Amino acid sequence: MPDSLLRAGIDDQDSMKGKFERVIRDAQDSICAAISEVDGTPFHQDAWTRESGGGGITRVLKDGKVWEKAGVNVSVVYGSMPAEAYRAAVGRDVKDLKDADRVPFFAAGISSVMHPWNPHAPTMHFNYRYFETEEWNGIPGQWWFGGGTDITPSYVVKEDMEHFHGTYKNICDKHDPAFYPKFKTWCDEYFQIKHRGETRGLGGIFFDDLNDRDPEKILAFSTECVNSVVDAYVPLVKKHMNDSYTETEKQWQQLRRGRYVEFNLVYDRGTTFGLKTGGRIESILMSLPKTAGWEYDFQVADGSPEAEFLDAARNPRTW
Amino acid sequence: MPDSLLRAGIDDQDSMKGKFERVIRDAQDSICAAISEVDGTPFHQDAWTRESGGGGITRVLKDGKVWEKAGVNVSVVYGSMPAEAYRAAVGRDVKDLKDADRVPFFAAGISSVMHPWNPHAPTMHFNYRYFETEEWNGIPGQWWFGGGTDITPSYVVKEDMEHFHGTYKNICDKHDPAFYPKFKTWCDEYFQIKHRGETRGLGGIFFDDLNDRDPEKILAFSTECVNSVVDAYVPLVKKHMNDSYTETEKQWQQLRRGRYVEFNLVYDRGTTFGLKTGGRIESILMSLPKTAGWEYDFQVADGSPEAEFLDAARNPRTW
Repeated sequence: MPDSLLRAGIDDQDSMKGKFERVIRDAQDSICAAISEVDGTPFHQDAWTRESGGGGITRVLKDGKVWEKAGVNVSVVYGSMPAEAYRAAVGRDVKDLKDADRVPFFAAGISSVMHPWNPHAPTMHFNYRYFETEEWNGIPGQWWFGGGTDITPSYVVKEDMEHFHGTYKNICDKHDPAFYPKFKTWCDEYFQIKHRGETRGLGGIFFDDLNDRDPEKILAFSTECVNSVVDAYVPLVKKHMNDSYTETEKQWQQLRRGRYVEFNLVYDRGTTFGLKTGGRIESILMSLPKTAGWEYDFQVADGSPEAEFLDAARNPRTW
Repeated sequence: MPDSLLRAGIDDQDSMKGKFERVIRDAQDSICAAISEVDGTPFHQDAWTRESGGGGITRVLKDGKVWEKAGVNVSVVYGSMPAEAYRAAVGRDVKDLKDADRVPFFAAGISSVMHPWNPHAPTMHFNYRYFETEEWNGIPGQWWFGGGTDITPSYVVKEDMEHFHGTYKNICDKHDPAFYPKFKTWCDEYFQIKHRGETRGLGGIFFDDLNDRDPEKILAFSTECVNSVVDAYVPLVKKHMNDSYTETEKQWQQLRRGRYVEFNLVYDRGTTFGLKTGGRIESILMSLPKTAGWEYDFQVADGSPEAEFLDAARNPRTW
């Protein structure tokens, strides 16, 4: 495992690139250690490098005692982005930037999805990333942060959602009282399965293109977010990992995982962009569940726990 | 069930619209009857109409003895298509047609996917459709046919593939010796999972925008294609539906179904177009398997039957 995925002799370890890489590498270590301890199963690791510099470290726990599949992926990538993506990121048109131009960028990120066996234990996803563009053709370099943590149970357990959302609300409020309402709503909007009129899960926080203050302040916020994944999520899994469940509940979990797949393959920008631009397929699709299902025209019974979940997915709640 | 999905008093039953609707409605009846007989389970039917005229009839067999899920869907739709889609269909730029224009069209089609339980019995898909555009702003009306039948086994059984492809080669050759080589290659190219560098299944025929001869001749060809689905497919299922299989073989089938989902949600034009333009979701996603799976970085053993399948999916063969 390389000490750093940055370009030796080019990128400064004390720059924001270096600091952010340290945060996500440490987070990968501590999160994998915590999950491994609960599951009793180690993560398998693949380290990969790219010729252009950078690379990634993919860690996956397969067929564990608690999780069917859990993955935590760190990557550092150097590339060039289309003018359209650059404009979207900086939030405005840029003088002298033509449609066909491509702007050199650096991106470092951590992403993770964990799918437990038990239908009463929730799936969780998080992703934190830092982008920089280089000064290019007289256009100054830009930087921004993005990320979020969100939860996808198959059933609504109010106190669990209060714990998960409360954890992130507390973190947000410490850094800026405007963050939580904005990032909670952004999460509900981003994870829409538009053709179903429902969200993938029950939300969390999501932010992108964040560069409106001292980068050290956003780094501190992102660091606290990624370092709180275990506190926000693991208690929910410990509480439910040994719950008894029926065949009906397992089938409902499979259908919700089918919806997870629909969202990731049809709408998720990271996934669709990665698949179409030659990212490392196995690391991108690590997010898909080990098992999923689809039933034609499945109907939930009125007043059932499945109907309660659908109501929460169709009408995002404040927890 | 309505006698005709055409617009009463507007569309002529003796027109190509009427003739094509008759062909696909009859095919839906005969194919469902043949599948039901093998499975011992009836199809469930949903008939739906659209306010603008037209509608559809969806028939699904769920949790059968032989098939996990089998669906045959007929629809007749009136709508308007973007200039870009119209140009692609007629194969040339059209004078006086602006990018923002939308051209009124009629589309009738039958589509079907059947997923058996047994990993040695193949999944099969077919779709046959007829389009007409109305004369619009002085641009003459156009018409074209499209369609195809393709097979997706989890294992290579050479004589089965010879039977399936041979059936369609014989039909093609009767109508035009140029058809089979062209439509076989088109199928291999269309069903590429580009990010994997492999095809969804082991091919068949695929054609689109076919309007280069008397429409009655293309109707006759399409009719023979759709009416040969049972002969091409059902013997393969009867041969393998009671084969014994291992846990490894069942798991491999689940992974191949995961690939099926990847193709349909990421690349299939009918699916992605339907999801984004408000088609009937349950009829569009009827094609997805009841069960599917994903494993991180799954590797097949050298010389195994799974490796043989992958080789055929990576290097399309002539059967």
